Amino acid sequence: MVINKNLENFRIILVNTTHPGNVGATARAMKTMGISDLYLVSADSNIIDDHARARSSGATDILDNTKIVSSLKEALIDCHYLLGTSVRMRTLSTPIYYPRAAAKTAVDEYTSKGLKVAIIFGQERMGLTNQEIAVCHAQIMIPANPEYSSLNLASAVQLICYELKLASMDETIERQDKRDELELATANQMELFYEHLEKVLLKIRFLNPSQPKLLMRRLRRLYNRASPCQQELNILRGILTASEKASENKLKNMEE
Amino acid sequence: MVINKNLENFRIILVNTTHPGNVGATARAMKTMGISDLYLVSADSNIIDDHARARSSGATDILDNTKIVSSLKEALIDCHYLLGTSVRMRTLSTPIYYPRAAAKTAVDEYTSKGLKVAIIFGQERMGLTNQEIAVCHAQIMIPANPEYSSLNLASAVQLICYELKLASMDETIERQDKRDELELATANQMELFYEHLEKVLLKIRFLNPSQPKLLMRRLRRLYNRASPCQQELNILRGILTASEKASENKLKNMEE
Repeated sequence: MVINKNLENFRIILVNTTHPGNVGATARAMKTMGISDLYLVSADSNIIDDHARARSSGATDILDNTKIVSSLKEALIDCHYLLGTSVRMRTLSTPIYYPRAAAKTAVDEYTSKGLKVAIIFGQERMGLTNQEIAVCHAQIMIPANPEYSSLNLASAVQLICYELKLASMDETIERQDKRDELELATANQMELFYEHLEKVLLKIRFLNPSQPKLLMRRLRRLYNRASPCQQELNILRGILTASEKASENKLKNMEE
Repeated sequence: MVINKNLENFRIILVNTTHPGNVGATARAMKTMGISDLYLVSADSNIIDDHARARSSGATDILDNTKIVSSLKEALIDCHYLLGTSVRMRTLSTPIYYPRAAAKTAVDEYTSKGLKVAIIFGQERMGLTNQEIAVCHAQIMIPANPEYSSLNLASAVQLICYELKLASMDETIERQDKRDELELATANQMELFYEHLEKVLLKIRFLNPSQPKLLMRRLRRLYNRASPCQQELNILRGILTASEKASENKLKNMEE
């Protein structure tokens, strides 16, 4: 039996969208594909205005339930897999997928297991910043005309939601997986881990604060790829704490 | 390298579009996917107005070359295969394809052989009439939310053109990971890393030699899943060495 499962586990996040009309058009695009969880990362709490409502063309229920938050971190807090969209290759790359492959991974590995997936869209002209991309587990690159890759934001959302819907239709309900039993770490838990890691790397003098280079970003990419479960994250945190203590004892001994 | 073949053999036809903005947005959507042949079946020869140009967002070259004709027949005259788009099943049935299957047929059987394919989009609210559908060889049905299938016209064009572009790619570069270019760590290098890791975990007293439990096996599973490249492995080894030094200094200080 083919069913549309777990479209409710997809969240669309628009970062710093400038045109209210694009927010409305995004809500419409999402609703046509049966996806309804919309977050806006925006400094403007009035971005859902009359123009947005008009462009939503009846998808006002999506807009009524849209969350407006002030940082990307808040929008991601309960998500397990983060995909950033882009129309160009980034130099420091997280893995890059075409929409179809990304949708398949998202459904097979996450939403079909009840885990939440966020798809993140950047500001209209600029797209996502490298910093925002670095937070993501992978990038979705929409294959576009290299000479003119300027997709309208809502059109990009339409296209990605279409692939998510198709991938969800392919999904059958018989899947059972060991990873079900293990709870994957949430984005927030991963953030706390990275903060801890950075602190320890400074303490053991591996990270030079005056020349951090790309170290943290590289480590994020590595650990995101491993996509640790909570038990594994606890082990990693335990190692950090042990290393921290060793270094603290050393300092204490030197002072004594 | 990705080669788009014969995208020039696709023609997009909009029938009785009411909003000039949708014409502009359609031109933009087409151009992002490398398709440029646009026909409008319209009684209004001034439909390409300032609003259309603004919404085309730089795809004005498409608009400048758009043909406005007064009947569908004129728009189809040199086409070999006609596909009508729809979001709902029609009673009067020509064959119905999902976009992906339609795109594959269009490319394999027609455009790759130099034959012209027309994709026809109806009026915003009503879609194509039964009469217009009857002219087509097949329908493309966009799978949409049965409770809300109101795709924006340009979003529908975006989605179809995306499928046409994908089907036209000689070879998809499902390039999952840029790390391919970097050399993955060898099994032997991984072994040396695990030895080093174990040594440090003992030193910082995270690993209890009398009760090792499954710790190393769990860590192996985690890092194997991440499948580090050599550069990443060097970073991990560097962290271990830094942590080791911290702990050694501490011991030295205690002995002194």
